[in-house]
Amino acid sequence: MILDPETDLTFTRTINAPRSILWECWTTPLHIKNFFIPKPHAIDKCEIDLRVGGKFNTTFNVDGNIMENDGVFLEVVDKKRLVFTDTYSEGWKPAADPFMTAIIEFEDYGKGATTYTATARHRSPKARQSHEDMGFFDGWGTVASQLEEYAKSLG
Amino acid sequence: MILDPETDLTFTRTINAPRSILWECWTTPLHIKNFFIPKPHAIDKCEIDLRVGGKFNTTFNVDGNIMENDGVFLEVVDKKRLVFTDTYSEGWKPAADPFMTAIIEFEDYGKGATTYTATARHRSPKARQSHEDMGFFDGWGTVASQLEEYAKSLG
Repeated sequence: MILDPETDLTFTRTINAPRSILWECWTTPLHIKNFFIPKPHAIDKCEIDLRVGGKFNTTFNVDGNIMENDGVFLEVVDKKRLVFTDTYSEGWKPAADPFMTAIIEFEDYGKGATTYTATARHRSPKARQSHEDMGFFDGWGTVASQLEEYAKSLG
Repeated sequence: MILDPETDLTFTRTINAPRSILWECWTTPLHIKNFFIPKPHAIDKCEIDLRVGGKFNTTFNVDGNIMENDGVFLEVVDKKRLVFTDTYSEGWKPAADPFMTAIIEFEDYGKGATTYTATARHRSPKARQSHEDMGFFDGWGTVASQLEEYAKSLG
């Protein structure tokens, strides 16, 4: 995949957990609630239909403000690669004003650890900048730390 | 799939050709050139990578005006269902201003014939209306007739 620095944001880090566990975390509603948004914000609801075109809907609770995020999976490569977006809701219904497409990649890193890459692709440099200003690196970095911490509790 | 009359356009017709042949036509660059745009407009180039996320790029030649249409497949269900869009180009790069998502469905209709459904989903009622005004029903209807005619020559 060739990224576009004008419109994409990406980071890679290692996580001390095997990718099979990280995959479970990323694809199970019960687990999603434990790491997917920086605490103390919460996920009130998560629905997953793990297939191409299947729904990935989450409800964020940010200081009592409820935000519904409806999306779908675009690619599901078992334990390796998960692509999802708010560009569509189920049935390939296009969203009026989609924000981003996320690509989460897992690779083995030595014994029991994983190289974890999170990428967000956007429709324009402006959308990319706005995502960076919203705190992409801090926010997604915190999510990765919460994921690592939570994965330990499952190991 | 639940359609939205505010944003979607769709039609169904029967075509006198088996769906295996229609599928071949829809998924082979050489064949695409023979039916995919109302004549005398032409397809100068077609590139297909028939998998989810794979490219579906066509170059239209409309009275000498060259139009590049880069897209990807979202769903590929052999001989049954093909979903593609200009919302992404290869590698899930989001387009700045996508136009539509197309769903082409093939079902057996008696012996050797096919029920053919073509649906275009849009991001807004305005985009839907603009597509209808551009001649969706005439244009896609002509494409279906050209497909039937061309499929005969392969049968």
